[in-house]
Amino acid sequence: MPLVVQKYGGSSLADAESIKRVARRIVDTRKAGNQVCVVVSAMGDTTDELLDLADAVSPAPPERELDMLLTAGERMSMALVSMAIANLGDSARSFTGSQAGVITDDAHGKARIIDVTPGRITDALAKGHIVIVAGFQGVSQNTKEITTLGRGGSDTTAVALAAALNADVCEIYTDVDGIFTADPRIVPTAHKVDRISNEEMQEMAASGAKVLMLRCVEYARRFNLPIHVRSSFSYREGTWVYPAVEGEDDVEAPIIAGVAHDPSEAKITVVGVKDTPGSAAAIFNLISQQQVNIDMIVQNVSAVATGKTDVSFTLPKTDGQRAVQALQDAKDALGFESLQYDDQIGKLSLIGSGMRSHPGVSATFFQALADAGINIEMITTSEIRVSVVTRGDLLDDAVRAVHTAFGLDSSDGEAVVYGGTGR
Amino acid sequence: MPLVVQKYGGSSLADAESIKRVARRIVDTRKAGNQVCVVVSAMGDTTDELLDLADAVSPAPPERELDMLLTAGERMSMALVSMAIANLGDSARSFTGSQAGVITDDAHGKARIIDVTPGRITDALAKGHIVIVAGFQGVSQNTKEITTLGRGGSDTTAVALAAALNADVCEIYTDVDGIFTADPRIVPTAHKVDRISNEEMQEMAASGAKVLMLRCVEYARRFNLPIHVRSSFSYREGTWVYPAVEGEDDVEAPIIAGVAHDPSEAKITVVGVKDTPGSAAAIFNLISQQQVNIDMIVQNVSAVATGKTDVSFTLPKTDGQRAVQALQDAKDALGFESLQYDDQIGKLSLIGSGMRSHPGVSATFFQALADAGINIEMITTSEIRVSVVTRGDLLDDAVRAVHTAFGLDSSDGEAVVYGGTGR
Repeated sequence: MPLVVQKYGGSSLADAESIKRVARRIVDTRKAGNQVCVVVSAMGDTTDELLDLADAVSPAPPERELDMLLTAGERMSMALVSMAIANLGDSARSFTGSQAGVITDDAHGKARIIDVTPGRITDALAKGHIVIVAGFQGVSQNTKEITTLGRGGSDTTAVALAAALNADVCEIYTDVDGIFTADPRIVPTAHKVDRISNEEMQEMAASGAKVLMLRCVEYARRFNLPIHVRSSFSYREGTWVYPAVEGEDDVEAPIIAGVAHDPSEAKITVVGVKDTPGSAAAIFNLISQQQVNIDMIVQNVSAVATGKTDVSFTLPKTDGQRAVQALQDAKDALGFESLQYDDQIGKLSLIGSGMRSHPGVSATFFQALADAGINIEMITTSEIRVSVVTRGDLLDDAVRAVHTAFGLDSSDGEAVVYGGTGR
Repeated sequence: MPLVVQKYGGSSLADAESIKRVARRIVDTRKAGNQVCVVVSAMGDTTDELLDLADAVSPAPPERELDMLLTAGERMSMALVSMAIANLGDSARSFTGSQAGVITDDAHGKARIIDVTPGRITDALAKGHIVIVAGFQGVSQNTKEITTLGRGGSDTTAVALAAALNADVCEIYTDVDGIFTADPRIVPTAHKVDRISNEEMQEMAASGAKVLMLRCVEYARRFNLPIHVRSSFSYREGTWVYPAVEGEDDVEAPIIAGVAHDPSEAKITVVGVKDTPGSAAAIFNLISQQQVNIDMIVQNVSAVATGKTDVSFTLPKTDGQRAVQALQDAKDALGFESLQYDDQIGKLSLIGSGMRSHPGVSATFFQALADAGINIEMITTSEIRVSVVTRGDLLDDAVRAVHTAFGLDSSDGEAVVYGGTGR
């Protein structure tokens, strides 16, 4: 019997009516002849309400206790979904992350799954039950403490369980119809992609696309697991994120998978760094000690006459002030002249595995931006991605120009439903 | 170092401010030189809200899933109390019932504690942490499922942990000042009892006193554990429920501990039962098959001429219709003439271990009721208790008359705070 893992996000479980709708869908999947294991997030705004409560008793709550608190959210939704399934005459068993065998490291609030031992799940499935698992949570291997997985954690739970159970597919239900060629709120002509390679999806997620989190995509890629991203509000097919086949390009795939954008980054330029070995290393060691994730890095050509160079990098805006302060405090040790901080930037990325075999993609990309009068401030590339930094207030125009230049605009007038960023 | 187990009920944890107040109290107890293990109920109305949610998705939810849902309530409060303690600069670790080693049978919704293996608690206490445990919940020995203990479950958790940890005292914090000689809402002159024997408390709880649940008192009695019932809203001493010392009466104890009343019962009279061996057994076997708990039983003197007798018993009003229906269905088999059902009754009990050595208590009791013009419909007695059934609308008058007759009315004008029934 095929085994389907489904994941429902908080927006699909907002209230009792939504829960009953999801239960109906799960029972339909079971009746269609599948074993079904479902991962649920907390209902609607539950997590935010719990965070408000925590904030009311302590401005900086211990992470262990915060995880204990937040995991109550998924516990509630999994029990309610199980009850709603029972009410439809089918039988369901709910399991916490710990009961489901989701073993993590001990980094509270951002734990990583290191093993899955789903003995209780396979037992319950074998007995004919539908299984409901709390997403976003696990138990730490060494300390046996309850942990949470951080943003996108329920998607990661679903993919990890699907891999451990050797499932046929992992369905991620959300409030949008699938993966789009661009964010439809910015590009009204964007259209849903029927299929996208795992590799492309990974670049999309890393470049700002919100529907699937990067960690979940990485996990699916590692285990060669197909993901079906679809809406819980319709029965239409969504987007299949399919595993790459070794040494074999997908000849039917379009050259370009989509355009991603990210307005959440800032840029720091370290001006007048000594152009000697170790200068860049010293800067980025300092930044990494601040637990700041750097994205793009550009070092300008050295001006031979001065023996000095400028180093620019992008980072999350939320980490900006911390990084600037750390650099400023180390100015003498690092020996630079000045710092520039700019949080009015936007990042635009073009993703497509077809780039590998189609030269000229970058040229078309840059020409489209030039024709739209948009200046490029930084460029980085990977094998299947080109990313640029522009002025922030021109980012939306840039996304539309590139989307059109690569012929991605939808011509069939398909109604696009886009209700949020998903989680 | 002394070890104190404290239990805080939902009314003491109604909101963030209450939680901070409770945290302060816990930290004060720790600073006074005690190890502290705290059992918490769910916040305020959380349990009712969760039950409403369950009802909205399923009119008859599976008990396993209902337990999974309800246990989220204590999980939230324990994490929040821990955070509030951390915010005061002390360190706390919260544990679910399962983590705390509360092992139960597998009767979901009304599980009984069969063992406590508090290894993680003793470890945490040894490391200098304050320990917070979710009340009302455990894990079943055979099935490893999450269970709840039913009404008064958090008190029972506290007493069971106190026994397992060999604690010096178990403090039950509630919204009243302690155990009163009668319910102060009915008898304004009722006063707080400073101490009461475990045996008396057991009779009080069984007779309708709500502050401590019967199961919790039974547990404490079995383990010779002193309980201190007190208010979380003041620092006054409450009532000490002390273990009996074998073969030794407490000469300082008052003759009468208090007057308990219970308006929640109904009376069934089975009229014209054949006065032969086995008739009563057949009736009560039938009732027990309905999972109905019988309280008082009276069989009238057999009328020799007819060879028939009447059997009366009391039971919870909520079970009344079910019991009547079962008896009616078995009328032919049981061979009685008719049934009388009366839910307009009240039960009044006088409790005091001094009765054992002071004859005349019953006479004074009956005389007080006679003087107040109150008819007695049923009587039962134990070694330290006399209970009667009266008309329901006379119950409050009866309580006051008896309270006065035994000199229990407070003369010192002590302000009595009574905010609820406790849980």
